[in-house]
Amino acid sequence: MQAELEPAPILEDIVELAEARHVPVRQIGRSKFDSLTATASSQGVLARAQPLDEADLDQLAQRRRPTPAFLVVLDGVTDPGNFGALLRTAECAGVTGVVVGRHRSVHVTPTVTKAAAGAIEYVPLALVGGIPAALRRLADLGVLTVGLDADAPTALAEAPIGDQPIAVVLGSEGRGLSRLVRERCDVVASIAMAGQLNSLNVAAAAAIACFEVARQRAATG
Amino acid sequence: MQAELEPAPILEDIVELAEARHVPVRQIGRSKFDSLTATASSQGVLARAQPLDEADLDQLAQRRRPTPAFLVVLDGVTDPGNFGALLRTAECAGVTGVVVGRHRSVHVTPTVTKAAAGAIEYVPLALVGGIPAALRRLADLGVLTVGLDADAPTALAEAPIGDQPIAVVLGSEGRGLSRLVRERCDVVASIAMAGQLNSLNVAAAAAIACFEVARQRAATG
Repeated sequence: MQAELEPAPILEDIVELAEARHVPVRQIGRSKFDSLTATASSQGVLARAQPLDEADLDQLAQRRRPTPAFLVVLDGVTDPGNFGALLRTAECAGVTGVVVGRHRSVHVTPTVTKAAAGAIEYVPLALVGGIPAALRRLADLGVLTVGLDADAPTALAEAPIGDQPIAVVLGSEGRGLSRLVRERCDVVASIAMAGQLNSLNVAAAAAIACFEVARQRAATG
Repeated sequence: MQAELEPAPILEDIVELAEARHVPVRQIGRSKFDSLTATASSQGVLARAQPLDEADLDQLAQRRRPTPAFLVVLDGVTDPGNFGALLRTAECAGVTGVVVGRHRSVHVTPTVTKAAAGAIEYVPLALVGGIPAALRRLADLGVLTVGLDADAPTALAEAPIGDQPIAVVLGSEGRGLSRLVRERCDVVASIAMAGQLNSLNVAAAAAIACFEVARQRAATG
């Protein structure tokens, strides 16, 4: 559905792509459009989509081909902008699945979807009852769990990652990893810092960690 | 100045720290407070500060101790949230200065300051007339200029960086590096991608690039 806004070339492209895929396109009035959108900055286009499929934790963990499982586990990340940015970056790094707590974490809202810039369509998302139990299950299925903790003496760049199945575990914006989650990780590592602040936003920490893991996997594989 | 809001423990800490540094603290009414703040989410505290000092490009370039110059040059980054996030991450990576165009780029607004989470107090900022001329000057002063370009065949992790003085050059969110800027860079490199989207937000790209440079410098130094 397309609202009556100033004509923008991108809208024409969207209509053309939709028609090429046999997706019906309708023009609707501004007030109906606004009543249907859930974000403040919709840019004049709205799509009806199926609910996202939930992924299964065991299936994500058991992936070995074409590349071994490369998961991100979020322990209490709550900011939707950060979550969306993180999904977008994780997808670019080759992450094969993201695991979030069903009850405690952020969910896929319009803000998340927009910040993810398409990544929610490519990165399978598993919702689990609890992160500590999920970490135990991942370990049972042969996935190395690597928690990020600013105080850990081991730098991620020096951690023994190789190209085995791996899950990078990230804590909440304010408090980091919970104690139980930290204890369940096979390795706890830090991002080596060189400034005064020592305070990375969780989306930035995820970007650095995912691409560092990707670099090591490429160097090993 | 502190508005009459719900008492929050962080406010008490701020008052205590301000008094310890002999910074006068005043409580003011909500309407006066709102008329003085320039952001929608001020969290009840407002500080009067001196304008930021501008840094000198030559001085930033000539730094050799305690660590060689590690600069970030922004060619047309315009989103204030991205710019602030980038400053915060750059500070954590040990970046010693940021260079932006005086006329074309984003400036230090309240949104930038807030997203930077303190980093604008630590990272010197040089405003220049034009990015291509600044790159020539950096080269004259012995700084290796490394442009990030998604299409470059050389991966940043494979680029010859070592621990020499370096400037990482980042393009705008939509268009990347301008042609002239790309031509002026000594090296043009890409961040190796493994997903379907191939589209990193500029703040994420900056995070990955700055920490990759920091890793190589630490390994060499």
